[in-house]
Amino acid sequence: MKLTREKWENNFSEWFDWVIREAEIYDYGRYPVKGMGVWLPYGFKIRQAAVDLIRKLLDAKGHEEVLFPLLVPEDLLRREGEHIKGFESEVFWVTKGGEENLDIRLALRPTSETAITYMETYWVQSYKQLPKKYYQIVSVFRYETKATRPMIRLREVSTFKEAHTLHETYEDAERQVKEAIEIYKNFFEELGIPYIMSQRPEWDKFAGAIYTIAFDTIMPDSRVLQIGTVHHLGQHFTKAFDLKVQRKDGTLDYPHQTSYGISDRVIAVAVSINGDDHGTILSPVLAPIKAVIIPIPAKDEKETEKIIEYSEDVAKILVSNGINTVIDKDTEKTPGEKYYIWEIKGVPLRIEIGPRELSSNSVFIKRRDTLQGISVKKENLVSEVVKLLETLRKDLKERAWNFLRSKIRYTDNLEEAKKMLDSKAGIVEVPWCESNECGLKIEETTGARVLGKPYDSPRDVSKSTCVVCKKPAKTTLRLAKTY
Amino acid sequence: MKLTREKWENNFSEWFDWVIREAEIYDYGRYPVKGMGVWLPYGFKIRQAAVDLIRKLLDAKGHEEVLFPLLVPEDLLRREGEHIKGFESEVFWVTKGGEENLDIRLALRPTSETAITYMETYWVQSYKQLPKKYYQIVSVFRYETKATRPMIRLREVSTFKEAHTLHETYEDAERQVKEAIEIYKNFFEELGIPYIMSQRPEWDKFAGAIYTIAFDTIMPDSRVLQIGTVHHLGQHFTKAFDLKVQRKDGTLDYPHQTSYGISDRVIAVAVSINGDDHGTILSPVLAPIKAVIIPIPAKDEKETEKIIEYSEDVAKILVSNGINTVIDKDTEKTPGEKYYIWEIKGVPLRIEIGPRELSSNSVFIKRRDTLQGISVKKENLVSEVVKLLETLRKDLKERAWNFLRSKIRYTDNLEEAKKMLDSKAGIVEVPWCESNECGLKIEETTGARVLGKPYDSPRDVSKSTCVVCKKPAKTTLRLAKTY
Repeated sequence: MKLTREKWENNFSEWFDWVIREAEIYDYGRYPVKGMGVWLPYGFKIRQAAVDLIRKLLDAKGHEEVLFPLLVPEDLLRREGEHIKGFESEVFWVTKGGEENLDIRLALRPTSETAITYMETYWVQSYKQLPKKYYQIVSVFRYETKATRPMIRLREVSTFKEAHTLHETYEDAERQVKEAIEIYKNFFEELGIPYIMSQRPEWDKFAGAIYTIAFDTIMPDSRVLQIGTVHHLGQHFTKAFDLKVQRKDGTLDYPHQTSYGISDRVIAVAVSINGDDHGTILSPVLAPIKAVIIPIPAKDEKETEKIIEYSEDVAKILVSNGINTVIDKDTEKTPGEKYYIWEIKGVPLRIEIGPRELSSNSVFIKRRDTLQGISVKKENLVSEVVKLLETLRKDLKERAWNFLRSKIRYTDNLEEAKKMLDSKAGIVEVPWCESNECGLKIEETTGARVLGKPYDSPRDVSKSTCVVCKKPAKTTLRLAKTY
Repeated sequence: MKLTREKWENNFSEWFDWVIREAEIYDYGRYPVKGMGVWLPYGFKIRQAAVDLIRKLLDAKGHEEVLFPLLVPEDLLRREGEHIKGFESEVFWVTKGGEENLDIRLALRPTSETAITYMETYWVQSYKQLPKKYYQIVSVFRYETKATRPMIRLREVSTFKEAHTLHETYEDAERQVKEAIEIYKNFFEELGIPYIMSQRPEWDKFAGAIYTIAFDTIMPDSRVLQIGTVHHLGQHFTKAFDLKVQRKDGTLDYPHQTSYGISDRVIAVAVSINGDDHGTILSPVLAPIKAVIIPIPAKDEKETEKIIEYSEDVAKILVSNGINTVIDKDTEKTPGEKYYIWEIKGVPLRIEIGPRELSSNSVFIKRRDTLQGISVKKENLVSEVVKLLETLRKDLKERAWNFLRSKIRYTDNLEEAKKMLDSKAGIVEVPWCESNECGLKIEETTGARVLGKPYDSPRDVSKSTCVVCKKPAKTTLRLAKTY
């Protein structure tokens, strides 16, 4: 069977809504508050696998998990000027408790720099306690005025992993930015999510940051989605909160901070990037169910019973080897109907067991990504399944990376850049002198969003000139249609 | 050394504040919103162990984890009349997004019956889908007017495990109530938390329930703390939300529900119940660190280095056997200062390693609960540590249960009941005719809180009469000073 990616690529938005609904990942559009949805059991397990992975990676680098209150008093949130400017139009405010008006408005946390810096004034006095690396996994809230989208642009971002670190020096915070980038790279590598890293332009960095490094990916419809950010905050918040620590030389000074976050969007990408017109394809790293067994009924009822027994035996072997496997025993559905739904759900392997498999003591295994099948003897079951899962994981990852790479273009002509972007180019790079003025001009002319300059793999622009001012280019500027 | 429980028992409130602060479990009273605190890294790990355990127990019984939005629109929350009456004075309301007034007020979830029942109208159509067992672990919010207390009475309850189930019949929901009770019993048994189960009186059941079974425990100060509740909701919410399903016989009817919850209070109890004047004592089931190694410096610096090396070797052996162990290498603190802080933190075992241990290839292990020590040869290290942890776990549990049992009294004299309660009796049972009128009279006369009638171990009251009306008693009524 030919696995097409027509709907996936050309009607992605519709495809995505269909998959998260039919695969029972995330219920969106029915809960009666705009921009808020429900993680369904299957989706919750995918989410949990991602959460477990990021915890493991952060803990291994000495991060400590904490849990702060949801509510931030207005005066705290207003303490750092740039920060509140960036967020104030998007804050949900609690103003009442019962029928009493509260003395001070309480914000649903849009992010936690202010709350955490405030508490650090109690916790940290000396450089000897530094660096400190905290993180929490919580909901954050934004009163988005843009069109909301399930898992991608929400008013309640229900899986926000935010890390907040504190350092004696600017340089140590910069080292932390690099550590955070390595952690996120490992995270995305493990999940098979391709990414590109850019330093956001001055006019699009995090409100309160010195600079922001962002991870972006390209969705099936060629639009770019930001999936992770790392900020060097310098002393902006420590000064605003008058947080001073004793330095090694005995003087008191404001320590330096970083913060970095990832969200639900990681799951949205994991579900999207490996998809086709049959549904999603989950990397085995995230898949709650690694293999689904579909018993193929025989004409003879007793034989069917034996097939079920045999299927249970196969499932037991796999489960006891740590490979979560379910049998779809529904007697009201045909095997074909079962294939349909489990393909939408993206279970990596399907194991078909019918009379032929029963009599030959074998199973027939189909990979979700290719739908190619092989017959496997029962005695080789575990080793073959492990091998297939690993091959599938690698193949998915390679395909996803190839897709991303195929969507990055270069031109030194601004008109052409605009045309490329209008015809789903993905990301277009143009040579740039690095001035804000030219950057803003490029953004305006192309009607695209500026992602910033390359952080990872800069192009050689030594012979190029800025597309606007024609002065020698210092780097490239990345442009895209974004979410 | 004699381990006293003076402060623990007689100044419990102060003891508790001291422990959670000094052990770095929960930062309370400094975050600038009343009734909200911060889970610190050490406390977060204790919390996580409890969360992992309840997840394991619920999943094993077919519960599915989901995640609902925080915000509940006012009209949804008002749908079930009794429910909103019980909660409305305690709801935090979001009324603004940015500077815009919202069309409808949004409640910070006080609990999720309404949100979940609403979504179930989309999800469930047929008895074939039943029973459904959902749960989520989230923050819930109550605008408490009573005095707030860390982890015990909060405005943000940041670890609320709420389960919500749906059933074809009243009887199946009743079966679920029993299943939930078994799950909670297993949970508390495993954590070594003693409990007593009561059916709450009519006037103190959950707002919207047919009946409520509660788990209570007795704190060191003899006051009773509710630590878990299980509610039979009948058709109250399904009727309010017009949720009908097709029954086996083809008719449409409102299904029956249960809900059950536990909270942060479980951690508060785990920290409190096994304590003494040196701090908390954590059951190995919850302890993030099972053993702490304190190297005792030698006079000779080289020997001290060898002691450190030897300590690292010991730690490595334990960690590789799944026993999380840390070495306190701080050179600015004396061993005595280290004992002090690790005792507050309640690490189950302390391993002292000095010149004597180094030369004899042994370690000296002290149990936190008794501070009794034994010398153990290195070759027996793992088996001895495992044995000690298990003995300590059992001993803690037994002591805690003995404490609870010693605090349950019986009298058929109301005056005496009042006296007992005023002199820290814990729980007092009196014979009761089971009428609301007499129950309320008992509550009024004693000035105590009525916990309800025994669910677990009812007394034989066949020869007794109600303390108020003198008619034959049907059961006992439990009274207590409560949190």
